[in-house]
Amino acid sequence: MATKDDKRLSRRALLGTATAAGAIGAAGGAGISELASTSAEAQTRPAQPAAPRPAPSTANKYEVKPGELDEYYVFFSSGQTGEVRIVGLPSMRELMRIPVFNRDSATGWGQTNESLKVLTEGMTPEYRELLKGREGIYMNGDLHHPHPSFTDGTYDGRYLFANDKSNTRVCRIRLDVMKCDKIIQLPNQSTVHGLRVQKYPRTGYVFCNGEDRVPIPNDGKVLDDPKQYRSMFTAVDGDTMKVAWQIIVDGNLDNVDADYQGKYAFSTCYNSEEGVTLAEMMSKEQDWVVVFNLKRIEDAVREGKAQMMNGVPVLDGRKGSPYTRYIPVANSPHGINTAPDGIHVVANGKLSPTVTVFDVRKFDDLFDDKIQPRDTVVAEPELGLGPLHTAYDGKGNAYTTLFLDSQVCKWNIDLAKRAYRGEKVNPVIQKLDVHYQPGHNHTSMGQTKDADGKWLLSLNKFSKDRYLNVGPLKPENDQLIDISGDRMVLVHDSPSFAEPHDATIVHRSKINPVHVWKRDDPFFADAVKQAAADGVTLESDSKVIRDGDKVRVYMTSTAPAFGLESFTVKQGDEVTVYVTNIDEVEDLTHGFCIVNYGINMEVAPMATASVTFKADKPGVYWYYCTWFCHAMHMEMQGRMLVEPKNV
Amino acid sequence: MATKDDKRLSRRALLGTATAAGAIGAAGGAGISELASTSAEAQTRPAQPAAPRPAPSTANKYEVKPGELDEYYVFFSSGQTGEVRIVGLPSMRELMRIPVFNRDSATGWGQTNESLKVLTEGMTPEYRELLKGREGIYMNGDLHHPHPSFTDGTYDGRYLFANDKSNTRVCRIRLDVMKCDKIIQLPNQSTVHGLRVQKYPRTGYVFCNGEDRVPIPNDGKVLDDPKQYRSMFTAVDGDTMKVAWQIIVDGNLDNVDADYQGKYAFSTCYNSEEGVTLAEMMSKEQDWVVVFNLKRIEDAVREGKAQMMNGVPVLDGRKGSPYTRYIPVANSPHGINTAPDGIHVVANGKLSPTVTVFDVRKFDDLFDDKIQPRDTVVAEPELGLGPLHTAYDGKGNAYTTLFLDSQVCKWNIDLAKRAYRGEKVNPVIQKLDVHYQPGHNHTSMGQTKDADGKWLLSLNKFSKDRYLNVGPLKPENDQLIDISGDRMVLVHDSPSFAEPHDATIVHRSKINPVHVWKRDDPFFADAVKQAAADGVTLESDSKVIRDGDKVRVYMTSTAPAFGLESFTVKQGDEVTVYVTNIDEVEDLTHGFCIVNYGINMEVAPMATASVTFKADKPGVYWYYCTWFCHAMHMEMQGRMLVEPKNV
Repeated sequence: MATKDDKRLSRRALLGTATAAGAIGAAGGAGISELASTSAEAQTRPAQPAAPRPAPSTANKYEVKPGELDEYYVFFSSGQTGEVRIVGLPSMRELMRIPVFNRDSATGWGQTNESLKVLTEGMTPEYRELLKGREGIYMNGDLHHPHPSFTDGTYDGRYLFANDKSNTRVCRIRLDVMKCDKIIQLPNQSTVHGLRVQKYPRTGYVFCNGEDRVPIPNDGKVLDDPKQYRSMFTAVDGDTMKVAWQIIVDGNLDNVDADYQGKYAFSTCYNSEEGVTLAEMMSKEQDWVVVFNLKRIEDAVREGKAQMMNGVPVLDGRKGSPYTRYIPVANSPHGINTAPDGIHVVANGKLSPTVTVFDVRKFDDLFDDKIQPRDTVVAEPELGLGPLHTAYDGKGNAYTTLFLDSQVCKWNIDLAKRAYRGEKVNPVIQKLDVHYQPGHNHTSMGQTKDADGKWLLSLNKFSKDRYLNVGPLKPENDQLIDISGDRMVLVHDSPSFAEPHDATIVHRSKINPVHVWKRDDPFFADAVKQAAADGVTLESDSKVIRDGDKVRVYMTSTAPAFGLESFTVKQGDEVTVYVTNIDEVEDLTHGFCIVNYGINMEVAPMATASVTFKADKPGVYWYYCTWFCHAMHMEMQGRMLVEPKNV
Repeated sequence: MATKDDKRLSRRALLGTATAAGAIGAAGGAGISELASTSAEAQTRPAQPAAPRPAPSTANKYEVKPGELDEYYVFFSSGQTGEVRIVGLPSMRELMRIPVFNRDSATGWGQTNESLKVLTEGMTPEYRELLKGREGIYMNGDLHHPHPSFTDGTYDGRYLFANDKSNTRVCRIRLDVMKCDKIIQLPNQSTVHGLRVQKYPRTGYVFCNGEDRVPIPNDGKVLDDPKQYRSMFTAVDGDTMKVAWQIIVDGNLDNVDADYQGKYAFSTCYNSEEGVTLAEMMSKEQDWVVVFNLKRIEDAVREGKAQMMNGVPVLDGRKGSPYTRYIPVANSPHGINTAPDGIHVVANGKLSPTVTVFDVRKFDDLFDDKIQPRDTVVAEPELGLGPLHTAYDGKGNAYTTLFLDSQVCKWNIDLAKRAYRGEKVNPVIQKLDVHYQPGHNHTSMGQTKDADGKWLLSLNKFSKDRYLNVGPLKPENDQLIDISGDRMVLVHDSPSFAEPHDATIVHRSKINPVHVWKRDDPFFADAVKQAAADGVTLESDSKVIRDGDKVRVYMTSTAPAFGLESFTVKQGDEVTVYVTNIDEVEDLTHGFCIVNYGINMEVAPMATASVTFKADKPGVYWYYCTWFCHAMHMEMQGRMLVEPKNV
């Protein structure tokens, strides 16, 4: 088998080396590679109105007319913006932003007590200390991979999970209210990059790739000694949002996916060189896909074979361990995607023009050492330059983004397998130009067993000349492609702010949010509990409770008035304002903002929100409703009177 | 004249009183008015897919096909989100977000030294103190009114100005780079709500309505004594971004506009009762439009007649002053809009079903006491329930949003004048349903003398059933209407997150941003200066300068590598990282993020960005590029090694 593997890998040698050399050259400011110039050429194309393209003959069928509803929800990563966006498809309109790893002025995310609890309770103690001078929370996030929870291989409408690459966090969003209810920071690792969830029997696990290698513990005792750096793969329990287990691996983990049988997760893995510079990381021509055996890991944890580190069971899954297998692929593979057929998994070559197709049914034999790692490979078609991610239509076809070629390649899995077995067939069906440099791509329901083959999104990293010029910082470009027919048809360009990255397309039948909060919702249970202790009924009482130098201000809000037209506190008091929106009316959100005090929060129908601040400045401070509620919305206000300390 | 005025005002009595009663009832939880139920009925309409509407026969002409460019830039307020959004029209795609009064994780706005300078240098000293515990900056904003600078009655492409209602601030955005370069906080006032700019001869002044009444100074010596509260009108010099002058007024100022002659500004003004509760504010049936005489004010300031308060010249413009005139209109007028004909100004009734039309040519005589205030009124058509804002097509027609009726009313100014003079003509041409409860509206170039009568945007406060349900918090709804023909045609529904509020539609010929930063840009001049002092050339040097416990880390960035693959600091050091993007390539933005340190920033082509932080935690921290730049983007990283204190 080794001979066959070598032959297949050697096809990529020239390309991989050229890229590496170019990259290193650029780092030193000395040279530029062939690939770099291809990329640069595309990037320097002058901005000018593109020539009108012929409209597809079926143009009107794509229009979502005023008042019509979209057929799909798309949950979009926002990358370094730190939020999740809900977009309607096919209209590609942004329907809502969900603040997660960011601060949000409109909703008070990062300021309300309810959001601060979410942002801080799962933080590791070591970073709690670091952030003390910064209101105790991270101000930034880098949200890459939003994935909904599964039951039996398809979406169940409970949760959406996503990672923060910048601060090693995982979040959970409740799909009934579309708010983040849990964030945890993973110990013993630096960054979480790839994230996907268990598809079967349910989620279950949220799989998190630790990309960077760092010393464990990372306390400064080990610094510039990369031999002592480790990277980590983590499984989070999606129900409890606690770390179930961690496992140390070789190399840097990139993307991850899981099977439809509940037995394996698998990650692409680069930097098998375990270098710390670009030159070192690119020196070999081979990296891996790492396969994780869930049952073996669970058994080992149960049997106490794991080491407890920062309260978490950690196993060693480096090469040679019973928990993992390392399957060689070309240098720096990127995306990894399980097909809806439940059988095939595609690892995308990035620096190789090929993708590698595995048959998950062979992983049992691989772990039992009955076959060699490369025996799990059933196809390896050459698609074009820079294959990054693959999506599926549920009809046996795959759609792979080609970053360097700025194309989507449609190819057939079965044809690719026949070609791999030596048949003279071409698996490539069509290549479609996209604009420009695509990363992730997604098909409607394509990451589930219900893939319906209607739509494809290509998330492109550069837009360049596709939109009106908005200055040096430009939008990225999400393109909508109709894949319902034999040929892909480009339908729409959709700009996006920092960074499309990843998205999940969910049929609207799978999602069923509420219109109005339930009063017993855990999101504001702390407020309800405190009110009860103060003898206050949140839904009807508006009153001020003084408790030493702590003041709790309770008020209702109902358009167009707050329950209190004024309240008085003393300079230096710690004030907590609880606002309960008693308008049981769909879409009738209120806001509470104190002028010049830097306080603002959203209070949706039948919700309670609270904010705590020091009343440091004496004087008259108006508060007002920030979410438009009524013809008299502008008059929905009141006064906070802060008595000076010396009075 | 008094008799005529009284008669006109009395038409609105019933409606105004009913609203007031209802509002007061709601505040007390006891009753609900006729108007409130109208509003509530619309709001409780059950969510269900709207029936498909017939497509306009010209549907295809509205499509902006992939690769085609929009014809207009729209600068959108984001309300309580605190940012400005650039939207393309007619596609209604969001092309860019410009962080202003918010924190932005993606760009590092509120974290980079360059943005912190903008956010803090114009802050009043009293609030600098209040915000010390919160990184020294406000975390929220409420951006209402974005308006571009004018020269000779039309947009000149230099700047965009906007207000922060929540923290009494005014910002300026440079339209060459689409970044905010100045923010000032206005002293002596609480909130700035309405904002518009001088149209002639140029901007010039930025007019800012102080909405709330507070004690001056607001230091706690006066608290619950509303007789001593004052509200303020401010003119900011748009070139220097300093307060030119302030003037104390009666009542609460709402919206503002200016003439095309450079002589007057005028504001709607409610709460002539000078009350502090909703009941008090609604007790009279009459409020005002306040007209400001710019020359008289400038002369008085020059002649030293102003009192200096917190470094700013303040005049008293309350009733009876030579600087102002108070023109009676019905209770609680809202929007005020100057027509492109340079003659007519419309104040919108809100609680009255009418709008009041003034002829600006009569204001000279009004200030010379040759006529009575109401003699400046030339029409007062009754349009429907809840008129809030009026836009123009440049062909003599006006478009007024009716908040309670959820309609846009198209009417003719000349017909309204004839009706006011007693002719039996109906000025109303068409009413179009919008969805739901419209606030501001805007026509293409309609706030300039170049109004072109092509497009109308209706910014609606509620969307309810118009989109897929996204939970309790719903988007608002900006609707695009074709006004190029005789009848208005609804073309597109566009959801928006918190709150559309206001927008300005600018033809693309007026805006000409750069693609790449110039190295001598003042935005990062401080970094250039510091580098020069350190003997560092930002465009080529990557080095670390230690200066006591301050460490300055200079590095270039060029895809796919930072100039430094690692740098070392000591625990407790104050570290400033300067990154200079030397990729002189359109759309090739880099980012700089330190994992687990909460640091991230954008560095656009040929820009320098810097961030300062305390290296409080020892260990190995990877930094990486957050804005996708290259096939090897994932490998664009390096290590910050923080040596423990005791080493």
